[in-house]
Amino acid sequence: MKLLRHGIEGAERPGLIDKEGQLRDLSGHIADIGGAHLAPDEISRLARLDIQTLPVLPASTRIGPAISRPVNFVCIGLNYADHAAETGSPLPAEPIIFLKSLSAYSGPYADIIIPRGAVKTDWEVELGVVIGTRCRYVSEADALSHVAGYTVVNDISERDYQMKRGGTWDKGKGCDSFGPIGPYLVTKDEVADPQDLDLWCDVDGTRRQNGNTKTMIFGIRKLVAYVSEFITLHPGDIIATGTPPGVGLGHKPEPIFLSPGQLVEAGIEGLGVQRQRTCAS
Amino acid sequence: MKLLRHGIEGAERPGLIDKEGQLRDLSGHIADIGGAHLAPDEISRLARLDIQTLPVLPASTRIGPAISRPVNFVCIGLNYADHAAETGSPLPAEPIIFLKSLSAYSGPYADIIIPRGAVKTDWEVELGVVIGTRCRYVSEADALSHVAGYTVVNDISERDYQMKRGGTWDKGKGCDSFGPIGPYLVTKDEVADPQDLDLWCDVDGTRRQNGNTKTMIFGIRKLVAYVSEFITLHPGDIIATGTPPGVGLGHKPEPIFLSPGQLVEAGIEGLGVQRQRTCAS
Repeated sequence: MKLLRHGIEGAERPGLIDKEGQLRDLSGHIADIGGAHLAPDEISRLARLDIQTLPVLPASTRIGPAISRPVNFVCIGLNYADHAAETGSPLPAEPIIFLKSLSAYSGPYADIIIPRGAVKTDWEVELGVVIGTRCRYVSEADALSHVAGYTVVNDISERDYQMKRGGTWDKGKGCDSFGPIGPYLVTKDEVADPQDLDLWCDVDGTRRQNGNTKTMIFGIRKLVAYVSEFITLHPGDIIATGTPPGVGLGHKPEPIFLSPGQLVEAGIEGLGVQRQRTCAS
Repeated sequence: MKLLRHGIEGAERPGLIDKEGQLRDLSGHIADIGGAHLAPDEISRLARLDIQTLPVLPASTRIGPAISRPVNFVCIGLNYADHAAETGSPLPAEPIIFLKSLSAYSGPYADIIIPRGAVKTDWEVELGVVIGTRCRYVSEADALSHVAGYTVVNDISERDYQMKRGGTWDKGKGCDSFGPIGPYLVTKDEVADPQDLDLWCDVDGTRRQNGNTKTMIFGIRKLVAYVSEFITLHPGDIIATGTPPGVGLGHKPEPIFLSPGQLVEAGIEGLGVQRQRTCAS
């Protein structure tokens, strides 16, 4: 299933996209998409519904973040060898974890707000792994049993805030609108091999990022197991698994960054495409 | 007022401590302590209640985290000059921000769980500033108008995870039980000068940390304003403002750390005392 959340910002309702691409309402069957509602028996229950009986919603309906606000929005840094190289960073010996402020939580079509005075706002398309059941100290062998599905994340980053203001990267990762999630959560049964998905990011129609999840340094099983060694993952949590090459910071001969009025489109094979306009704060 | 949350874990109800030190129930008057319930008009409404009419609860009632799970649990690193020195770190030129995983969110009397195999679990008593109203790009002059009150935080840290596992500090800061909050939220009207509060941490009855918030490098007004430049603060968010000297990592001649079966007590003048037993994972 392609599950999503639609309606008024902050009061989104559950829905799905059917095989014909129509948006249908799930409000009569589940309270929300996210958190404990992602438990395997809840997903199984939804999968048994006769989709044709669900109300069709207008194509103009607003689509919100694919999942409700999680407990943890975990990100993995430098998880593609080519991306590490383009940023001039050594390959990590073990996964780099950082946390994205939940203030950044945003919808797939919401404007990207460039912070006041910021001049190095950058894109990072990433495969988002959405957790279905609580996990702590999970093995790599069991890791995928705790995954509900996959979604598109853009780990928007302000590079000067991230790297030139001291301390951790967190200053450049948690600004409002810096964490668009969606358009939908694709349940894992519909993703044949999450470790072989093309992903890309276009800016004003020019392809900037182009990769495949097969070139991750640390794969999804490893990441779920590894994160759970340090941080208990809750149902509805998201792990953004790192970005392939092609970010603005790595552009040659000079870096390029976002300015107001641009169009950013980030997509993953089978998981849909996000589309945002950039605007000033 | 000394506001708190009592009852079953995960389903806490609002309450307060009266002038006689009795625990009274606020369930009839507010849904929870935290989030939008910390708006100034909500706090004013509570302040007008006749406290003597509120039901008294048994002294044995469980006390949970002083506020509901926030959107952001922001921490400030190395914000006391003596603490920076004891860890061998240079003084920060601007505040160091990191985020604590909300998996660490915990009550003031809950056990501190030492992670599997961890040998460098350490204490860090801190003044927690609790946000009352949303703020973004707030000035230092206006910063305190967005504060609801103050509480005790212990920024429990596993030093090897924090410093020897690569990447940011987040691996060592977000383990379950590493973020006890409370016992209560003291509304700001009852804190004459938050920049002149003694704070301390005892381990097995020995005073390990001993400081005063007057020696912060960056004061509370600065921190609220500064964080709001990068991360929008939501009602109920918490900023842990850094720890004074005396952490285990800085102990001479050799560092000392927590092991299972110890007693940790962390207090701040006028804000109460946390008390936890350490246990194995």
